[in-house]
Amino acid sequence: MLRGIIRGHIVSTKKQDSLVGSKFMEVQIMKNGELTDEYLIAVDSVGAGINEEVLITTGSSARLALHNANAPCDAVIVGIVD
Amino acid sequence: MLRGIIRGHIVSTKKQDSLVGSKFMEVQIMKNGELTDEYLIAVDSVGAGINEEVLITTGSSARLALHNANAPCDAVIVGIVD
Amino acid sequence: MLRGIIRGHIVSTKKQDSLVGSKFMEVQIMKNGELTDEYLIAVDSVGAGINEEVLITTGSSARLALHNANAPCDAVIVGIVD
Amino acid sequence: MLRGIIRGHIVSTKKQDSLVGSKFMEVQIMKNGELTDEYLIAVDSVGAGINEEVLITTGSSARLALHNANAPCDAVIVGIVD
Amino acid sequence: MLRGIIRGHIVSTKKQDSLVGSKFMEVQIMKNGELTDEYLIAVDSVGAGINEEVLITTGSSARLALHNANAPCDAVIVGIVD
Repeated sequence: MLRGIIRGHIVSTKKQDSLVGSKFMEVQIMKNGELTDEYLIAVDSVGAGINEEVLITTGSSARLALHNANAPCDAVIVGIVD
Repeated sequence: MLRGIIRGHIVSTKKQDSLVGSKFMEVQIMKNGELTDEYLIAVDSVGAGINEEVLITTGSSARLALHNANAPCDAVIVGIVD
Repeated sequence: MLRGIIRGHIVSTKKQDSLVGSKFMEVQIMKNGELTDEYLIAVDSVGAGINEEVLITTGSSARLALHNANAPCDAVIVGIVD
Repeated sequence: MLRGIIRGHIVSTKKQDSLVGSKFMEVQIMKNGELTDEYLIAVDSVGAGINEEVLITTGSSARLALHNANAPCDAVIVGIVD
Repeated sequence: MLRGIIRGHIVSTKKQDSLVGSKFMEVQIMKNGELTDEYLIAVDSVGAGINEEVLITTGSSARLALHNANAPCDAVIVGIVD
């Protein structure tokens, strides 16, 4: 998994039907507690908000965190870091 | 997911049968709203065009966005950013 | 697989139900026996602790090392290096 | 998908049985029409030859392009660019 | 697939049960016939030894090369380059 800080929210009105209702967050990745200049877009599954530190699962495993496990999604926020 | 701008259209006459009809777009990847020098080729699933900003799903999850979920495809445009 | 040294433990109280009980370790990746500045977060499956050298499996294969093979997890510690 | 130019052919006499008959091509990856210094090895599925520009699918989706979808292969040439 | 030279053997006594008997090799990756400073750990499936040049399959496809296709493994040596 990756660890990072949520920096923004991406709005996409025209999208795949199975992604309707998904909240796309742009996350700045951290390494060893330090911010990097890497970013990715992940769907929130735990109610996380801007500036919260989160855990992200990528790849096909990410879909297992969604209500619709057939949504074409490759990154999901699966936890909020305390 | 990744975010980027569609920069071109790749034409391939000789290709796998299951990819016939797919529109291959070359997308320049963005990070945190800034363009990078990374590019990838993604199949369009939402009617996106050149210079539009899009969301891309990669890996095996990408196929779930296609009519033919058995097409050998690893990146699909799943949304247009507003 | 990747090889690395466990550097820390990440605590996430609010997380996906299927990840409750998982121990998230931050691992510093090694190459050819040398430490790098790459890190990732992996779930422990073998009882490894801080400063131990471990083997990590990533991607969808990682889930096969967990009791719950449907947990949204993309990296697992699968062995301790002697 | 990735785009690149086939630069060579790799010969492996001793290999997994399910890969017998596969043609392993070394491909130099392109970005936005420019050659990079990245390379990967992909199995040909469309009759492509040295110096042809091709499209490559990676990951588990790649196997869908092969006659034997259970071959341990992670990259396949799925189209020739016109 | 990737191409590389086997540089070492990693010993892990405490590991996942399904990986018992697997031989973990550290491989130095090559690009276009030149050595790079990238390394990964792959399970041998073809009887390859130190200093041999090999082909490696990564990701979930790798498991198809193992006797136990449910082992949590993400990289396998699938061929020896002539």
